[in-house]
Amino acid sequence: MKTWKIISETDVSPSPWFPIQKHTIELPNGTLIDDYYITTLGNVAMVLPITTDNEIVMVKQYKHGIKEVVIELPAGFQQNGKSIEDSALAELEEETGIKTSLDKLIPIGKIANVPTKSSQISFGFLATGVTFNSTQNLDINEDIEIIKRTPTETLKMIQNGEIWVADTVAFIMKAYLMFPELFK
Amino acid sequence: MKTWKIISETDVSPSPWFPIQKHTIELPNGTLIDDYYITTLGNVAMVLPITTDNEIVMVKQYKHGIKEVVIELPAGFQQNGKSIEDSALAELEEETGIKTSLDKLIPIGKIANVPTKSSQISFGFLATGVTFNSTQNLDINEDIEIIKRTPTETLKMIQNGEIWVADTVAFIMKAYLMFPELFK
Repeated sequence: MKTWKIISETDVSPSPWFPIQKHTIELPNGTLIDDYYITTLGNVAMVLPITTDNEIVMVKQYKHGIKEVVIELPAGFQQNGKSIEDSALAELEEETGIKTSLDKLIPIGKIANVPTKSSQISFGFLATGVTFNSTQNLDINEDIEIIKRTPTETLKMIQNGEIWVADTVAFIMKAYLMFPELFK
Repeated sequence: MKTWKIISETDVSPSPWFPIQKHTIELPNGTLIDDYYITTLGNVAMVLPITTDNEIVMVKQYKHGIKEVVIELPAGFQQNGKSIEDSALAELEEETGIKTSLDKLIPIGKIANVPTKSSQISFGFLATGVTFNSTQNLDINEDIEIIKRTPTETLKMIQNGEIWVADTVAFIMKAYLMFPELFK
């Protein structure tokens, strides 16, 4: 299947906080489209941490895009000059106080969040046998509650809609398919 | 947990195709933030169709946000003046040639795609016992290949990363948790 050809691109971002590119495109059938808009919001590093007590650690916080408090896996934008793995470790420690190491991160794949309109990809990692061995380090404007649930309870929360953010649901369920023994 | 208060909002959309709002926010601790940006891209209606031959019907197409060809459930933006259910029926028929009816749609919940930066929510519906009883109706610029896989094969494609778009993964896995008998 053929992809689209970018003839030209212009930065039309209203702010560095929401980067937008305007593309002129040539479709495989030769048609020109002179106004296709995508956002180049950064990629996301996300961790599914399971403690030595067999609990999945999640974070509950207000998200202003949907104006609701949601429960998600610890995550954040890939940090400047850091690999996606180092960003995952840093976000996990900052949001939850769990410090782990590169050799404990098991990749569980990547997820495209809004492929029609956004280049953003979330990269997921599993980290088992973790403990609260460090301290949370939140911005003064961050308000995060730690949520701990067994793997079985976590699946129920997805089933009943209590956990409903796309990449969080996708990575928990990928881990379930890849490592079913963790969810028994 | 407290939510944020919107003090003012301004439309800073670079185009109607990518609506962006700039908000001035008051945080629960009293701090003012005068430049929080979110997109108000429309909500999405998505259908997980299972045929009388026990195959899940998906669509394979190029998505310019990530510049790749991906396999997703049939879906589209909620259509003007239509309910989310009617939009689901219309998108399913246009993209796959499967016509079904409101009484066949089983809601399988909602999914927030990028809750930090976007108001967009995907609404999922299961439709079993469907057939290719109508005709695809694509825009001249649309190029869609129909993909049919058994439920078991579909789970494998999620596990191995062949299906990796967030809301598609989330709704297939929600259906799996809610109706495991369909995946045997």
